[in-house]
Amino acid sequence: MPEFLELLPPGDALDLYLERIHVQLPAEDIDSRQAHGRVAYQDIFAPHALPAFDRGSVDGYAVRALDTHGASDSLPAYLQLVGEVRMGESAQVAVNSAECCLIHTGGMLPQGSDAVVMLENTQVAKPGEIEIYRAAAQGENVIRTGEDIQQGEIVIPGGKILNAADIGGVLALGITRIQVVRKPVVGIISTGDEIIPPEEDILPGQIRDINSYSLAALVESAGGRPHNYGIISDQEEPLLTTARQAVQECDLVVITAGSSASNRDLTAGVINKLGQPGVLVHGVNVRPGKPTILAACKPEGAQYTKPIIGLPGNPVSALVIALLFVEPVVDLLLGVKPKRLRNFIQAQVSVNLSSSSGREDWIPVKITAQDHQYLAEPIFGKSNLIFTLARADGLLHIPAPATGLDSGQKAEVLLF
Amino acid sequence: MPEFLELLPPGDALDLYLERIHVQLPAEDIDSRQAHGRVAYQDIFAPHALPAFDRGSVDGYAVRALDTHGASDSLPAYLQLVGEVRMGESAQVAVNSAECCLIHTGGMLPQGSDAVVMLENTQVAKPGEIEIYRAAAQGENVIRTGEDIQQGEIVIPGGKILNAADIGGVLALGITRIQVVRKPVVGIISTGDEIIPPEEDILPGQIRDINSYSLAALVESAGGRPHNYGIISDQEEPLLTTARQAVQECDLVVITAGSSASNRDLTAGVINKLGQPGVLVHGVNVRPGKPTILAACKPEGAQYTKPIIGLPGNPVSALVIALLFVEPVVDLLLGVKPKRLRNFIQAQVSVNLSSSSGREDWIPVKITAQDHQYLAEPIFGKSNLIFTLARADGLLHIPAPATGLDSGQKAEVLLF
Repeated sequence: MPEFLELLPPGDALDLYLERIHVQLPAEDIDSRQAHGRVAYQDIFAPHALPAFDRGSVDGYAVRALDTHGASDSLPAYLQLVGEVRMGESAQVAVNSAECCLIHTGGMLPQGSDAVVMLENTQVAKPGEIEIYRAAAQGENVIRTGEDIQQGEIVIPGGKILNAADIGGVLALGITRIQVVRKPVVGIISTGDEIIPPEEDILPGQIRDINSYSLAALVESAGGRPHNYGIISDQEEPLLTTARQAVQECDLVVITAGSSASNRDLTAGVINKLGQPGVLVHGVNVRPGKPTILAACKPEGAQYTKPIIGLPGNPVSALVIALLFVEPVVDLLLGVKPKRLRNFIQAQVSVNLSSSSGREDWIPVKITAQDHQYLAEPIFGKSNLIFTLARADGLLHIPAPATGLDSGQKAEVLLF
Repeated sequence: MPEFLELLPPGDALDLYLERIHVQLPAEDIDSRQAHGRVAYQDIFAPHALPAFDRGSVDGYAVRALDTHGASDSLPAYLQLVGEVRMGESAQVAVNSAECCLIHTGGMLPQGSDAVVMLENTQVAKPGEIEIYRAAAQGENVIRTGEDIQQGEIVIPGGKILNAADIGGVLALGITRIQVVRKPVVGIISTGDEIIPPEEDILPGQIRDINSYSLAALVESAGGRPHNYGIISDQEEPLLTTARQAVQECDLVVITAGSSASNRDLTAGVINKLGQPGVLVHGVNVRPGKPTILAACKPEGAQYTKPIIGLPGNPVSALVIALLFVEPVVDLLLGVKPKRLRNFIQAQVSVNLSSSSGREDWIPVKITAQDHQYLAEPIFGKSNLIFTLARADGLLHIPAPATGLDSGQKAEVLLF
């Protein structure tokens, strides 16, 4: 495997890889209420200002600020009460000089008024007359028209992953339908003569498929739509046939290789037959996950080059590589901008850990929390088996330059 | 509002509140492939060991370790090749003394063998004879039956939120259906005479509903099922009727109050009419979100006491309180154990921020990342409007004892 001679660090491999993929997925028009977690296709502009009218921000009396000038406990201002602003309606009266109007939090400021005096700083002197104990500045306790957003301003920039506040925001503007990027379809192919579907009984020598399903779950939470092509035997022809179909039908194809070296070479060979440019990176300087394949091809009739990723068969390796490569490629396909804030926490390592300088390590850890301090305890498994991962809360990161971590040292943990 | 006289810190209020709610939601039987993010109803046990047979973990030759004793480059051991283990099948031959068998990574160990010598440490001496250059210890490069998990061992503990690795794990054991906790139904009631549905045009004094939809998005991502009861006017009778229906139909009811004080008192009054014990906490020492109501009631015919939460009307307050109280209550209803690792990052504050000692503050911030260092820049809005939130990446936490944060100081940010 000459490709392994010069292994790239994962960050460099990813940068090199993303540069080669240029894809713009089309938009999809959906109900804004269903848009949580989706990605805005383009900038969304405010059709009108918000708030659409001057509003009071406290319970009190709408006044002309000038009329309260110098008002204090010992020398209150006396204003004539001309009415009450009912919630959800415009004020029926205007506030003229030496007048005031009762207003509730969020109510529309009556014409003529320019400030609100809080209820706590007032008293009813006699029916129809209000004592004001505090001077109000112009605009005090008022939210001006357009203070939240101006008409024509960008509400949501294109490429943003829509969160709960965004959904509320667009609906506040009456935007009930929204253009989001179509979910990238991620084809998943499992190879291996020993692999069988989970619903079958295992015979000696067989194991059930793991990676297809853990990968599908990961693709879904990253915002993609997994499409499972089933289990393909370790032979060139059936794998090539399925891979050709997958690159036609999907936006990204992930092939989880069998675990033997010959099987990995088979995957690389098949990928190179799918089209140009083929395998771009074969082997990454990371543990676990070294035998990763990063590739791309432009199938016949396709408008753009499609990414293809070959994952190692070991379930821990497959998950690490999916987090390091599959998720960023899904984000690229979705046009996510800015980069997703990854779910890293800082944790203290419970034991000494060694690592080769120049190689990134990702170690499954269990996290325990004690008053905002996290302790990361590595879960050692002889061969990084699936329940090593199921027992872990995340992966501890030992960066490439480090030769290890000392017990008690802080490190980053990528949570699942 | 005498309840405000003694405000509890949010953590104490939550503890007091959770103690009063005892709910066990029923199980739901679903396809394991659809279980990502769901909560295991009870402990799941391994129906058989995994791996189900001794496997080789490298490409090489299966041997009896004893036969390789003392083998080296200068003095290799010579073993007779008796066959090859094909992937997915049991070995057709046994390995006797002075014999070996070709095996691929993941292949089933042939009878009689107890170790695997890596291909790199061997050479074909002549057809049918293999030179071994390295001694193998018993069990070397072998994954023993049950090393991943033993029959009857707990695979997934009840209360665990199922992640990608868990899905792979249960399917590896052939567990294609799984019992998860039914999603809690969260009733959402919006009140306010000024509030209209998002699809309607706004008239002077009106604003569109925000909180129902941002809250629904948050409930969904927390693992609940939102049920929207629409917008109810600021009067006791309609609110009481809707709230009565909601506590019957839902597992948790959230009422987003209008913003005025009278409206909040209306909410508390209605909740107290729903049943015992009624309002438990009215007002929490947090900014924003002070006028929060934490309540519970046992409606007629119900088997258990149901939680009811009154949220402030301001969108930022509503979201903060939803994160601090609604999410933990959803987790309680789901029986999530251990506590969810919240999505906190450490960030440097870009400016000086002041805070009252004894009060927790949550400030919307924009996060920028520079080589694994995060900078948190507060987004100041006069009245915490919705687009303050939509522009933010998370909420910066100023703990109760602090009187503020200095520019450059590190603090925790809860990401959206």
